[in-house]
Amino acid sequence: MAQPESAAKPATYYFEDLHVGQRFVSRSQAMDATRMKAFASEFDPQPFHVDEVAAQDTFFNGLAASGWHTAAVTMRLLVDGGAPAAVGGIIGAGGEIVWPQPTRAGDVLTVESEVLTLRVSRTKPDRGLVTLRSETKNQRGEVVQIFTAKLVVPTRPPAAA
Amino acid sequence: MAQPESAAKPATYYFEDLHVGQRFVSRSQAMDATRMKAFASEFDPQPFHVDEVAAQDTFFNGLAASGWHTAAVTMRLLVDGGAPAAVGGIIGAGGEIVWPQPTRAGDVLTVESEVLTLRVSRTKPDRGLVTLRSETKNQRGEVVQIFTAKLVVPTRPPAAA
Repeated sequence: MAQPESAAKPATYYFEDLHVGQRFVSRSQAMDATRMKAFASEFDPQPFHVDEVAAQDTFFNGLAASGWHTAAVTMRLLVDGGAPAAVGGIIGAGGEIVWPQPTRAGDVLTVESEVLTLRVSRTKPDRGLVTLRSETKNQRGEVVQIFTAKLVVPTRPPAAA
Repeated sequence: MAQPESAAKPATYYFEDLHVGQRFVSRSQAMDATRMKAFASEFDPQPFHVDEVAAQDTFFNGLAASGWHTAAVTMRLLVDGGAPAAVGGIIGAGGEIVWPQPTRAGDVLTVESEVLTLRVSRTKPDRGLVTLRSETKNQRGEVVQIFTAKLVVPTRPPAAA
């Protein structure tokens, strides 16, 4: 299995620089209860996301981050070197997201990604479509999110004649 | 086609209160450039999400909201009456997300949802699994996000004997 790319100095990638099985590991980020509750107050104001006491008697048995907060932090970790720094940016057309278990206050998240598929666009040959599977794990290695993204990555332009 | 439920006074739903084809419409919310850039600065700091000028020469041809911001605002609209207010909360196990086109500053978003499938959990009969397709539209009716969510909704407890 290939060594993951360094998170410290991401290179800039064209579609041709990627290969199936290529792996990337992000830096880590801690989840803070205050920020979790503020995010949820704005975007997902349900008792289990905004109040430790009210969260006790819910599905989550305690305070949990909104899944969208986990997704947003995952994106930040991808942008900061956890995903191939494609020329033109990390541009997602969408994907499939799963939250196997909640993110808790104090969790330290890291994202491990792998290129699953690659193909050049049939209609727009200046771009390729990349499937990147990203697992967001906590400090115990438990997976709190799997996002299988469809990314748009430019193909390398022809050299000038 | 059934009338959508009122967004003003959501009832509380058990799994048995839902039916395939049931529709819901959220309230509307405007997207603000300052908030878009602040969200992206925290979670998705790429030029096309944080700076109007730098965004001009990118894939998006101008400032666009992070897809995760669109997703987060969509969640807020679902919580505020755009989705069935399930007993115990709106709890998503995940789903498929697509961003057909970018969200722009000044866009006014509304979420239209429909129940696609319903089944009782095989292993946990106290809960049902609901597929809810939610289209987030701007003020011109253009779809900026489709999220097909897998929700967990409690089944109605047996009456006491």
